[in-house]
Amino acid sequence: MYDLKALRLKNLQTAKEKVRESIGADNFIVNSINNIEELEKVINTLVGRLKEWYALYAPELQRSVEDNESYVKLVLTKQKKDILEHLRNNFSMGADLKEEDLKPILSMAATIRSLYEEMASLEVYLEKTMEKHCPNVFRLAGTLIGAKLLRGAGSLKKLSMLRASTIQLLGAEKALFRHIKTGAKSPKYGFILHHPLVQGVGSTNKGKSARILADKLFIAAKVDYFKGDFIADKLLKELEEKLK
Amino acid sequence: MYDLKALRLKNLQTAKEKVRESIGADNFIVNSINNIEELEKVINTLVGRLKEWYALYAPELQRSVEDNESYVKLVLTKQKKDILEHLRNNFSMGADLKEEDLKPILSMAATIRSLYEEMASLEVYLEKTMEKHCPNVFRLAGTLIGAKLLRGAGSLKKLSMLRASTIQLLGAEKALFRHIKTGAKSPKYGFILHHPLVQGVGSTNKGKSARILADKLFIAAKVDYFKGDFIADKLLKELEEKLK
Repeated sequence: MYDLKALRLKNLQTAKEKVRESIGADNFIVNSINNIEELEKVINTLVGRLKEWYALYAPELQRSVEDNESYVKLVLTKQKKDILEHLRNNFSMGADLKEEDLKPILSMAATIRSLYEEMASLEVYLEKTMEKHCPNVFRLAGTLIGAKLLRGAGSLKKLSMLRASTIQLLGAEKALFRHIKTGAKSPKYGFILHHPLVQGVGSTNKGKSARILADKLFIAAKVDYFKGDFIADKLLKELEEKLK
Repeated sequence: MYDLKALRLKNLQTAKEKVRESIGADNFIVNSINNIEELEKVINTLVGRLKEWYALYAPELQRSVEDNESYVKLVLTKQKKDILEHLRNNFSMGADLKEEDLKPILSMAATIRSLYEEMASLEVYLEKTMEKHCPNVFRLAGTLIGAKLLRGAGSLKKLSMLRASTIQLLGAEKALFRHIKTGAKSPKYGFILHHPLVQGVGSTNKGKSARILADKLFIAAKVDYFKGDFIADKLLKELEEKLK
């Protein structure tokens, strides 16, 4: 007679081992890019709040700084009088806050700065992981676009099995289904729209660049998945030739 | 002949001074409560991400901790083997992550912890500001509900001019307008629903408690705005008498 209980335990153990073994670089990459995107959103929301709050103290700063990160930095590093002097403003509409009322605002700004640092270090980690896991895709697409493509496909394995035309449209699913359903214009590019080689060309050539880039990524993903050589520089050169 | 340019400058100066003088405790309170609510949302989102990520390492932890804050604390303070031992689990489905892959996860957890600290210190600041600005409303309603009422009205001045029935329904605007438009049930309470004296009673008496509490808040807001004495303890006693 079989020992069913022991057999069951053995099965459970094997299943758990399989789950454990399935965890790898793909998971780290997808989680990192998810977190980077989330942090970006969170930071934007909190900077909005900070601006509203700091405006009680020095509303003049708001209009003079466009970039959120420099705004936070200025709030943390400059005194109000330096800011006003720099803006050539000799009368601020902001109140003279007491130490105790200014402190929570500055503490908020410091928190946001630490979120920026967190995001930056996460990007470094993502870059390293991508470079090891899929060097060719990484070199061709860059960190963020590469990671988004990989997430869009599901894993490097799945990415390596996609057609070039699918890679070209990853990230444009909404527009694609709108095209299929309503006959609207078909999309020409997804995530790779933000690639310098696609962004850099005039709007009539964007579709063409996207197609050629997707062709090369199609090769790169296969080479990466089957642990081939580093051929990205060669691919990049061919790519640039074709785009001339 | 008038010096129009000088007159214009003088006018501008006066206007700016008026703007500056209008900034006060009301603004600090509204900004603090807005930020606390925002931080709460942000933390919840990031904890969700952290859980997904940490599950690669120790998925067993997820189900055993209900509260987000203790989850983050456990991730930061306990080793994986301690966690498994505590859960009486001798085989984890999570992968054995390398130092370099675990580090960004822990760094994320540390960031979330600092957001919790930020929120806690902001609550302390809000409490202090409320206690100074409107001691009676603060004592009756508590920090968070008091601040929300003040924000709902716009300022302490405006709160002191509202009717008790309006105070009772602050925060239930959506339900109120639905009632007016479609004839749905009228709401019985807004922000004050979460007050212990309203939460603590059975559902048949909730409306009554809310009404009596709003009556007392109506008095408290007026006393606070006109810088009267501290009568909140007396009001609270009357309130508790009535609710018996």
